[in-house]
Amino acid sequence: MSFQPSDPHYEDRVRASFARQRFIELLGAQLIAVHPGYCEIHLPYREELSQQHGFFHAGTIGTIADNAAGYAAYSLMDAESSVLTVEFKLNLLAPGNGPLLIARGHVIKPGRTLTVCQSDVSVRGDGKEKQCAVALITLIQLAGKPDRASM
Amino acid sequence: MSFQPSDPHYEDRVRASFARQRFIELLGAQLIAVHPGYCEIHLPYREELSQQHGFFHAGTIGTIADNAAGYAAYSLMDAESSVLTVEFKLNLLAPGNGPLLIARGHVIKPGRTLTVCQSDVSVRGDGKEKQCAVALITLIQLAGKPDRASM
Amino acid sequence: MSFQPSDPHYEDRVRASFARQRFIELLGAQLIAVHPGYCEIHLPYREELSQQHGFFHAGTIGTIADNAAGYAAYSLMDAESSVLTVEFKLNLLAPGNGPLLIARGHVIKPGRTLTVCQSDVSVRGDGKEKQCAVALITLIQLAGKPDRASM
Amino acid sequence: MSFQPSDPHYEDRVRASFARQRFIELLGAQLIAVHPGYCEIHLPYREELSQQHGFFHAGTIGTIADNAAGYAAYSLMDAESSVLTVEFKLNLLAPGNGPLLIARGHVIKPGRTLTVCQSDVSVRGDGKEKQCAVALITLIQLAGKPDRASM
Repeated sequence: MSFQPSDPHYEDRVRASFARQRFIELLGAQLIAVHPGYCEIHLPYREELSQQHGFFHAGTIGTIADNAAGYAAYSLMDAESSVLTVEFKLNLLAPGNGPLLIARGHVIKPGRTLTVCQSDVSVRGDGKEKQCAVALITLIQLAGKPDRASM
Repeated sequence: MSFQPSDPHYEDRVRASFARQRFIELLGAQLIAVHPGYCEIHLPYREELSQQHGFFHAGTIGTIADNAAGYAAYSLMDAESSVLTVEFKLNLLAPGNGPLLIARGHVIKPGRTLTVCQSDVSVRGDGKEKQCAVALITLIQLAGKPDRASM
Repeated sequence: MSFQPSDPHYEDRVRASFARQRFIELLGAQLIAVHPGYCEIHLPYREELSQQHGFFHAGTIGTIADNAAGYAAYSLMDAESSVLTVEFKLNLLAPGNGPLLIARGHVIKPGRTLTVCQSDVSVRGDGKEKQCAVALITLIQLAGKPDRASM
Repeated sequence: MSFQPSDPHYEDRVRASFARQRFIELLGAQLIAVHPGYCEIHLPYREELSQQHGFFHAGTIGTIADNAAGYAAYSLMDAESSVLTVEFKLNLLAPGNGPLLIARGHVIKPGRTLTVCQSDVSVRGDGKEKQCAVALITLIQLAGKPDRASM
């Protein structure tokens, strides 16, 4: 599906908000791409991100799945708005076993108040990708509350 | 509800598994209590755990909600087993704004294969607690695969 | 938790909306109780409501779980409003095997726009109740759109 | 994605199980297509299926979303097995307003024990289709328990 952003500067706005998240900095996640209704985030593996079996911790998978959905939604929101996650639901499909974790969020249904997104998460290694999680996520637009204002 | 653990050493087993999670160490979360079918995890605030408004990041809330549910379920599982999250669904109810984040997981329905848990997450400050999230989580027991074996 | 309804006539409003649902009439579900932030719905068994093993169909369980949550939320909403389900998530815990299906919905977190509810569903028979499902449900208030107006 | 069914008679098995659901008969839903990992169900509108505004009731949307997912999963399961829904999560995206409701379920990740599916639900009218719901659903295979055995 192709979406028309209401804010021509959506990419700057998304990147600025992404960069303000200290927890994402701690993880080391990178905003790779943002288009209208789409966002892709990468997270390189290191041991500090692992669960007890040495794979990506479910918490890291959920975090970037949620973030990719949030910024996919935020790309379509108004310039003077901020975005919050209402709820998210994640199915873990396979171990997050590989050097790179990738979350791709896309908007299923945009809305003035609520936006519904899907995120697909995969691990990449040896030139192959394997899906390890899928998520459905509901976001809310807080109109008239620019993200930067809360700094 | 009151549950009877099949493994009398459930607490040691849960604590050992908890301690093997490098990502939980990175966060600084602590296993405060584990009883049959119940687990409580605390996470003290620091800036590195925050989202763009300075509150606990949704990723940290989801991570300890999932962990508290997982270990509540694991407390009732067999000695020679490990636990995996099948899926989790989290509703964010209020900003995670306070010095301490608390997740309390409890088993709603135990099972030989699947266990369903609820986690309630709150922030504590000034002697008050405020709920900031609720989660429903499905866990699976991997029988005959001790958690330590995968080390 | 105890809630203060904004509309003193909440019960009439809820009962009138409940009665306008033709599908609920087809099922034969009954609105047993509505209090501020709480709603209880009963559904007596008959073969036409069954799945392939003769138990209550998951569709009937989901329907009254959602309805109980919706009217628990609607009891706290404004007189001139209507309610819609944003999303719901249901875990099936045991077969719906018995003569009476009971759904009890309660508000976890009310809000001007969004309300989050939990519904517990059980089957009653031989004087005993057994929980067969649990649900987390997000509702939205459509302010200024009375439910009756859409008739 | 393309799946290889383990049971060459999957279609007969799915259609026989579908036909044993009395509640689906009450609704009037029809099994339109079943392929390996895919199932499509149609439900023609009638007033008895409506909510208070005259549209398809959320309960009917959830029911056929769940059914389409269940039979998509069941098409890949063993001949001597039955299928149960573990949990389902549904987002309502738009009113179910039209003469025909269509649910398409497909397998995202098959498994010996658990299978994860997505269902997309739309309404068709005037030659157009509009998506009204999306669902993520987890199913479990009960091996060695043929569906017919429970009759």
